[in-house]
Amino acid sequence: MKKAVVLVSGGLDSATAFAVARSEGFECFALSFRYGQRHGIELDAAARVARTLGAAEHLVLELDLGRIGGSALTGAIAVPKDRDAADRAGGIPVTYVPARNTLFLAYALAWAEVIGARDIFIGVNAVDYSGYPDCRPEYIEAFERLAALATKAGVEGARFRIRTPLIRMSKPEIIRTGIGLGVDYGMTFSCYDPAPDGRACGRCDSCSIRKKGFAEADIPDPTRYI
Amino acid sequence: MKKAVVLVSGGLDSATAFAVARSEGFECFALSFRYGQRHGIELDAAARVARTLGAAEHLVLELDLGRIGGSALTGAIAVPKDRDAADRAGGIPVTYVPARNTLFLAYALAWAEVIGARDIFIGVNAVDYSGYPDCRPEYIEAFERLAALATKAGVEGARFRIRTPLIRMSKPEIIRTGIGLGVDYGMTFSCYDPAPDGRACGRCDSCSIRKKGFAEADIPDPTRYI
Repeated sequence: MKKAVVLVSGGLDSATAFAVARSEGFECFALSFRYGQRHGIELDAAARVARTLGAAEHLVLELDLGRIGGSALTGAIAVPKDRDAADRAGGIPVTYVPARNTLFLAYALAWAEVIGARDIFIGVNAVDYSGYPDCRPEYIEAFERLAALATKAGVEGARFRIRTPLIRMSKPEIIRTGIGLGVDYGMTFSCYDPAPDGRACGRCDSCSIRKKGFAEADIPDPTRYI
Repeated sequence: MKKAVVLVSGGLDSATAFAVARSEGFECFALSFRYGQRHGIELDAAARVARTLGAAEHLVLELDLGRIGGSALTGAIAVPKDRDAADRAGGIPVTYVPARNTLFLAYALAWAEVIGARDIFIGVNAVDYSGYPDCRPEYIEAFERLAALATKAGVEGARFRIRTPLIRMSKPEIIRTGIGLGVDYGMTFSCYDPAPDGRACGRCDSCSIRKKGFAEADIPDPTRYI
């Protein structure tokens, strides 16, 4: 059975990417990170996703990003609320984490090389997204070129593929794809700034995009909001 | 004063790259990693290098590479000894750590973006080296292209430069360059497999290359060997 490393954040997109990988017949090795996020709820969600979707293994790595700072997700900057699509079009938000996907993909590449996987699935999306530079197709292509040069396997002829099945989908399309593959989105978690009891704030960019996605897909949103 | 992030391993090459960065007038932010190496001696050396060469700050990050494995430097594989240049030309050795420089550079990029540095110095060398794929000029160029696409600063027009002053130097040239810039190589440490008392084994690839470099540069080797 061919192997894939699947980046799993606990959110809606990565759960869908996992379901797509599984539907293509991959044995999935789930990879998550504890990187100084404000809360651990999303890692609980990642563990549920990995277990429910049948990961062969779920590796959670510690990342020291909090000591580098520079983001509302890892530092002392407040998470912005109640921004609409026009606000979100205004530039890269403070929730941007410097070089995050480059780090995530670098770890995924290391693990892929060790276990003999050639496919790395990541649920990035360049349509209904937060404006992060490392979610764009040209970024992914640059990482794929790098991976071939970076590794022993690459030098020996292997071609690593960074698989982004959602990159050109709208959020409603992503949700319909996942529902079609049997994903229960109730196990996923997207909020940047949840209440202490684990309910989603409903107002950060991530909640706003998620809510709108379910509404536009005409599918009931299973999220517990404040 | 313009800032640079300098990757500092505690070895001879990165100390030399640091001295070059300083000679170009950079305020140097030293970055090291604890990544499941077999020993901590090289991090002591990194701290000495950062302090002696006047780093503005020295950040040591924890990396979870031991849990990924796949290398003699982070896992249970034995470090090879007594290989000569012909042996080393025979392919990528077991001391290769999957995707290591990609991870190191990704962290350096994140920190550079946060502190406003645009130059990242790394002491890679493609001449007297161990055959690692992520020390080659084409790899470094691919990372530079990635960095422009990966970051908010890149989207806003910044150009990150991955500076590799040693990449085309022989080991004797590196040593002479460092000596010319006042580097005391007695504070550096290169051995992959030191004795418990901290002396270098003198027989791993890294020791072999270092010894030969000092001999060919006709400069006394300050290393304490077993």
